[in-house]
Amino acid sequence: MINVGIIGVTGYTGEELLGILLAHPQARVTNLSAKIDQPQDISVIFPKFKNRTSLICQEPDLKEICAKCDLVFLALPHTVSMEIVPKLLKAGKKVIDLSADYRFKNIKVYEKFYNTKHKDKINLSQAVYGLPEIYRAKIKNAKFIANPGCYPTASILALAPLVALNLVEKDYLIIDAKSGVTGAGRKIAEGFLFSEINEDFKAYKVDVHQHAPEIEQELSHLADKKIKVTFVPHLLPVNRGILATIYVKKSPRQCGAKRSLPEGDQVTTSPGIVELYKKFYKNEPFVRIKEEGSFPRLKDVVGTNFCDIGIKDGKNEIIIIVAIDNLLKGAAGQAVQNMNIMCGFPEHAGLR
Amino acid sequence: MINVGIIGVTGYTGEELLGILLAHPQARVTNLSAKIDQPQDISVIFPKFKNRTSLICQEPDLKEICAKCDLVFLALPHTVSMEIVPKLLKAGKKVIDLSADYRFKNIKVYEKFYNTKHKDKINLSQAVYGLPEIYRAKIKNAKFIANPGCYPTASILALAPLVALNLVEKDYLIIDAKSGVTGAGRKIAEGFLFSEINEDFKAYKVDVHQHAPEIEQELSHLADKKIKVTFVPHLLPVNRGILATIYVKKSPRQCGAKRSLPEGDQVTTSPGIVELYKKFYKNEPFVRIKEEGSFPRLKDVVGTNFCDIGIKDGKNEIIIIVAIDNLLKGAAGQAVQNMNIMCGFPEHAGLR
Amino acid sequence: MINVGIIGVTGYTGEELLGILLAHPQARVTNLSAKIDQPQDISVIFPKFKNRTSLICQEPDLKEICAKCDLVFLALPHTVSMEIVPKLLKAGKKVIDLSADYRFKNIKVYEKFYNTKHKDKINLSQAVYGLPEIYRAKIKNAKFIANPGCYPTASILALAPLVALNLVEKDYLIIDAKSGVTGAGRKIAEGFLFSEINEDFKAYKVDVHQHAPEIEQELSHLADKKIKVTFVPHLLPVNRGILATIYVKKSPRQCGAKRSLPEGDQVTTSPGIVELYKKFYKNEPFVRIKEEGSFPRLKDVVGTNFCDIGIKDGKNEIIIIVAIDNLLKGAAGQAVQNMNIMCGFPEHAGLR
Amino acid sequence: MINVGIIGVTGYTGEELLGILLAHPQARVTNLSAKIDQPQDISVIFPKFKNRTSLICQEPDLKEICAKCDLVFLALPHTVSMEIVPKLLKAGKKVIDLSADYRFKNIKVYEKFYNTKHKDKINLSQAVYGLPEIYRAKIKNAKFIANPGCYPTASILALAPLVALNLVEKDYLIIDAKSGVTGAGRKIAEGFLFSEINEDFKAYKVDVHQHAPEIEQELSHLADKKIKVTFVPHLLPVNRGILATIYVKKSPRQCGAKRSLPEGDQVTTSPGIVELYKKFYKNEPFVRIKEEGSFPRLKDVVGTNFCDIGIKDGKNEIIIIVAIDNLLKGAAGQAVQNMNIMCGFPEHAGLR
Repeated sequence: MINVGIIGVTGYTGEELLGILLAHPQARVTNLSAKIDQPQDISVIFPKFKNRTSLICQEPDLKEICAKCDLVFLALPHTVSMEIVPKLLKAGKKVIDLSADYRFKNIKVYEKFYNTKHKDKINLSQAVYGLPEIYRAKIKNAKFIANPGCYPTASILALAPLVALNLVEKDYLIIDAKSGVTGAGRKIAEGFLFSEINEDFKAYKVDVHQHAPEIEQELSHLADKKIKVTFVPHLLPVNRGILATIYVKKSPRQCGAKRSLPEGDQVTTSPGIVELYKKFYKNEPFVRIKEEGSFPRLKDVVGTNFCDIGIKDGKNEIIIIVAIDNLLKGAAGQAVQNMNIMCGFPEHAGLR
Repeated sequence: MINVGIIGVTGYTGEELLGILLAHPQARVTNLSAKIDQPQDISVIFPKFKNRTSLICQEPDLKEICAKCDLVFLALPHTVSMEIVPKLLKAGKKVIDLSADYRFKNIKVYEKFYNTKHKDKINLSQAVYGLPEIYRAKIKNAKFIANPGCYPTASILALAPLVALNLVEKDYLIIDAKSGVTGAGRKIAEGFLFSEINEDFKAYKVDVHQHAPEIEQELSHLADKKIKVTFVPHLLPVNRGILATIYVKKSPRQCGAKRSLPEGDQVTTSPGIVELYKKFYKNEPFVRIKEEGSFPRLKDVVGTNFCDIGIKDGKNEIIIIVAIDNLLKGAAGQAVQNMNIMCGFPEHAGLR
Repeated sequence: MINVGIIGVTGYTGEELLGILLAHPQARVTNLSAKIDQPQDISVIFPKFKNRTSLICQEPDLKEICAKCDLVFLALPHTVSMEIVPKLLKAGKKVIDLSADYRFKNIKVYEKFYNTKHKDKINLSQAVYGLPEIYRAKIKNAKFIANPGCYPTASILALAPLVALNLVEKDYLIIDAKSGVTGAGRKIAEGFLFSEINEDFKAYKVDVHQHAPEIEQELSHLADKKIKVTFVPHLLPVNRGILATIYVKKSPRQCGAKRSLPEGDQVTTSPGIVELYKKFYKNEPFVRIKEEGSFPRLKDVVGTNFCDIGIKDGKNEIIIIVAIDNLLKGAAGQAVQNMNIMCGFPEHAGLR
Repeated sequence: MINVGIIGVTGYTGEELLGILLAHPQARVTNLSAKIDQPQDISVIFPKFKNRTSLICQEPDLKEICAKCDLVFLALPHTVSMEIVPKLLKAGKKVIDLSADYRFKNIKVYEKFYNTKHKDKINLSQAVYGLPEIYRAKIKNAKFIANPGCYPTASILALAPLVALNLVEKDYLIIDAKSGVTGAGRKIAEGFLFSEINEDFKAYKVDVHQHAPEIEQELSHLADKKIKVTFVPHLLPVNRGILATIYVKKSPRQCGAKRSLPEGDQVTTSPGIVELYKKFYKNEPFVRIKEEGSFPRLKDVVGTNFCDIGIKDGKNEIIIIVAIDNLLKGAAGQAVQNMNIMCGFPEHAGLR
């Protein structure tokens, strides 16, 4: 049993984290904070938590947080995290940061896409990118996790097997992604009004979204060479969920596949791509590969920490469809999965 | 053919008005204005109007408006209208005000419910309440129309026959109303974000809504005695439409029915309530009475200027269900209907 | 730990039950059945259960069910339950029936409203109406539970304090109820198509719904006299949730209040109605009374077993607004709550 | 003024056609028919048409239809049209068929994708593919129109300029399309229930949809060589609208551009793609090209006959985003546009 705190509990991700942690068998929530005028019962802010907790939400008081918590989740806007993280780490706390502040190995990419100076280069290098399916071993021993973005989680998991095994052409990766509205956070702007989004659908930040370089960083790492993606996100009139349809071109079989499959299986291009995915993820508790001809849908993953992947293996190209809940596997659920790994709890604890 | 202007064209009602007027066979839109930083093509603000008009939207310039328009629609927030109306009327323009500023005969009720001082008592008395089914004769000769609220339009039309004929108990009128989100205007507030409203439903302003006294004013006028209503509005997760379910108690037959039916028919309490409604509204182009056992739904009225009414005639009580499109019969459509009557156009011109 | 089975697992309620029970700390699901062409993995029928269970769904085989289960949930259409219940009870199994078959004390009311003959009068009398807030003591010792309907659960909990204490006029109870679409079950009919319901709203079965007599039975029992309600249900374009707005008239204070409050408190009519509700439900884990001026919304209860109640205490009338998740407190959640009580588990086990 | 009939008026497309034609200044609807048990007022079937028409819908009676109509719309399921079309043509009627039966020049493609034998090869050859932006001249003199599919209309208009001018690689055309639910017609099946689609999103018929060969036929015709597309449709939880995001690779500039631009302009690859589209469609009343950096959304086209196109001109690839209303430009609106052209009416008559 550990004591945990949430800074930024009033956003969608913070709210979701609280819901999971209140029911977590090995975590006790001991501190809630957010930008707030005056301290208030969290059950007044979110009436759904009434009768479930009597915790109070207040402005972050780092002294109190450090006194009461072993591990702290930061569900803060980008650029705010890096002002707080150094102090928590210095106090010896475990930290899981859900912002983008510590996700980029190359500080210049961060500074360009988030249009700000980075203020904490020192801790940047020790941050572990919290995608358990790729970095579980590092997460186990980490003190500090940079929790991945929602689109990157879906996109990287969908492409990892093909990219790691050098099975696709590296300059032909098209990610057509669609996200529910909570992906943008609780942003009060005309574009997020009900009447603007309901019965509408549109693309946004066409090929300029800040999640593209995050995806490219991780795919390049897996491929051991520079990978570029075409990434077009769209806004779905639903509360939760990301579904991305990904189009890649098969490469002629390449010799130096960077990473061999579990159990050293031989890779056969076709019809075995579905099998290849199943083997790649065979020990993963939260990745489910659909049978040939079957594809994911939001309904099956919303409310869960699962990532569902379906594959259409064509003659020259492969179509991969992936779905996650943006607030769970794409944010709060994955953060708790990381906590479980860091603390030696069962990986699915609190996540069913 | 007349020249018309819209002040406040950037709100939902103004946008809807523009859509109707651009296709109106006898009106030419000559001026568009709104609170706006700098003049802009209306088709940039609302891309859906591209290729339909090249009008520019600018800050209201009353001189120009008066020079270019014969009739002006004001689709402004409450309290803003009464600063502009006097100037337009003084310039001899016909005016249709869609705000609440001139709807109340009793200035104190307005001042209490809208929490402001009224600044134009002089014109208040000459404003005609623009509900054609009740005030058509006056509208014909009016210079200045106070266009009714959306809930009042639905509620008054649903209750007028019973109240005018003294058929129901006056202290037992329950209006359980449900409205789509555009009813609140293009309000940028947390409560109107997509994720807050989608998959949700709730009551608001429970029995304290400012439309209750507007309904009471008109029903009292029809009944020739003071009528009080219980009015609870709810927020539906749809863009448009109001549906209200109304519960009234039958009164013992009263002698002095204020107003006789068209053609002097005898009123029979039951089973003739549906018939009574049909007769009451027999010449109305935009009121449709459902057959016994059949009830309105939003789908049938959204996008139209119709008001659909269904009646369940019980032993001691009557249930009336009414539906309109809040932006059409509840606002812009009714405003154009009023314009048609004022200008001697066919009443349905531009409204199909 | 007990072994449980679900008959009718492929409907919305069965699916929901399975989700709860798979995570229940003291129940093990050992049998799943439904009307089905051939046995199939439940995770093929509902891909969301993949990696969570490997159970197979097959046609109900009562012998096998009795061999494998201590307690059986029936999530079956009305009239089908009563063919199966007698056999399970005879085999000594605990049974929780979610259909309407055993909810009515007066068999004639059932036969009229469900338009069928009842086939199991013998067991009807021993069925306990599974509303824990009213019948907890009986449920504790029951073998056989008739789980309440969704509208009745909301309506009875909203009215129980007023009715039990004789505070309202018995011939003036108006229930304007709104339900999400899953309330109708997985019914394949034109009226339930997406394009028919999305952006629509309507009343249905106006004052003739079969849940009205169920509500009347229980309210009459609480009041110790015959109570009639006016009940108009509406269909909301949301997946889940019921919200009802209820209008009642205050009665002049009556002497012989049937049932005294916990701790023998004095009843004061106003402003104490909210307090009265709080006391009435003070030990209830799943009923939450809102503070004065605050009202329930679907969002706060959907996905939970809570029933939220808000009260507007007027001069002559009281408005009560109540919200539940129709599939949880209105069906599967309440069924599990009943199981917990019957089996001596913590009442909130598996329900958070 | 011409007399028109609609066969198959009870589907979504037929209903939409009727709505347009009732308000069309030069068409008089004289016959409505559909598969129906017994003749019925169309305003009973669709209460929204009450007070707008008193037409009756009955089983199709070809004799009567031919007696009463100059032009007939067929809004029938695929395979049903080809049993009726020959008779109407033989009677000298103008025919606009909204099914797929006459869209394919290569009968084998039709027979494969629609899994049926074609029964009317004779008339197949005289059918004009009713996409006015490509075939206006032929439509003007046509007796018989095969109205395009909804996805093909959007896809072909989005790609026509690039394909006709040989600007893109022919083996790299990815169409990621998303459609509202009415695209499937009024199909009563579990997959189209509200609770199945609301808050969900998924791909379907992944790269095997019957609209792909229709798109390929027309693009190949424009390019004068065989074009293949990758086409993945998705189901959006909205009533209406198609938005497709299309990814193409630029080809090295090719000499023999098949077709020169209007006014013989020089084609410059970049940054002039937006300009090129504007010129290509400069005289089109229903195609709107967005400015650089601006993209279409459903909201701007739903309820209109417009096709909006936005372009992102990258270094090696071009992303085109296109939006239409599937029931208007994608079906009924385009059918009326074709009627207007065939009959010499203003092309936008009845379409605003």
